[in-house]
Amino acid sequence: MAIEDGSFSKADRYCLVVGVVVTCNSIERVLLDRIHIDGTDGTKTVMSFVNRSKGVGLIMLPSVSLAGFNVIDPHELHRKLKVPVVVANPERPRLEAIHEALKRHFPDWKRRIRVFKLMGSPGIFRVPREGVLYFYAVGLSATRTRTMLRSLIRFGKKPEPLRIARIIARALSSTSPLKITWGVRR
Amino acid sequence: MAIEDGSFSKADRYCLVVGVVVTCNSIERVLLDRIHIDGTDGTKTVMSFVNRSKGVGLIMLPSVSLAGFNVIDPHELHRKLKVPVVVANPERPRLEAIHEALKRHFPDWKRRIRVFKLMGSPGIFRVPREGVLYFYAVGLSATRTRTMLRSLIRFGKKPEPLRIARIIARALSSTSPLKITWGVRR
Repeated sequence: MAIEDGSFSKADRYCLVVGVVVTCNSIERVLLDRIHIDGTDGTKTVMSFVNRSKGVGLIMLPSVSLAGFNVIDPHELHRKLKVPVVVANPERPRLEAIHEALKRHFPDWKRRIRVFKLMGSPGIFRVPREGVLYFYAVGLSATRTRTMLRSLIRFGKKPEPLRIARIIARALSSTSPLKITWGVRR
Repeated sequence: MAIEDGSFSKADRYCLVVGVVVTCNSIERVLLDRIHIDGTDGTKTVMSFVNRSKGVGLIMLPSVSLAGFNVIDPHELHRKLKVPVVVANPERPRLEAIHEALKRHFPDWKRRIRVFKLMGSPGIFRVPREGVLYFYAVGLSATRTRTMLRSLIRFGKKPEPLRIARIIARALSSTSPLKITWGVRR
């Protein structure tokens, strides 16, 4: 399952999150929810996506935070769900800038930065003819993560699940002429 | 590009329509709009999807009508867009039932039924181990349509573009706990 967030503007309180279940590099199911921008409900929402799906064997994230600085804790996901978590992105994580921003804007910045720091240094995966993918893996060795990334990349630098999740998240949050809004049924 | 409609209930006026651009059996772009349930704006909306995308080489539909009896005219699409149109579905089209329903509920039933009748009898494509797919093709020979369907079917009986479009359309119109509503930006 790959997770992506939608785009949002400063006036928004919530951001769309998309979970896409991918099997054999093809989409199988799409889950949607919203999380607070800069909130703390991201990890819980990803867990609910996994719990609503059957047999998820891997969670992929584009980043350790979604919807601004709503931190998704890969260690917590792995501990509670017993599923490996891989964070993969063509952009190198900018830890110092994140540190500065968190410190300036969040009273609970220590708790948030801790999640980033626990990830350590990103691994590097070279995509033939395309460049580099930076990754973190929890519950999966770097070697196995590389093998997995190799099998999941078909177009460009992004693994298919993340590429598909991003296309859907972007379509839903910036589509024109349709303006989508979402409420909660709970 | 494959088109699908979302689910709707009796109280709704509009139904979501999804257009998915698929290349090499993988999703490339998602377009969204809404059409009137039982309305007459379906063909125009599909045309706008194609016009907003580049280099669409084929339009796939699950049926000659979406959103109830909002008829999508494959001949009109083909004539105006110069792109072949293939309608494919594991269910055999029930022309007599459609005829009856249209006659009973629509003052303009003759115009609507004409589109169905112009399609003639559906072709049959046998999917190894899975069963049968019924298809109509406009602007593409039956032989070429079969070759194309063969290359597009990876899981079950449905060609990938239609399978992907359906997963997304269903996720958007019946997702829980998120209730999505859409307005129009025009």
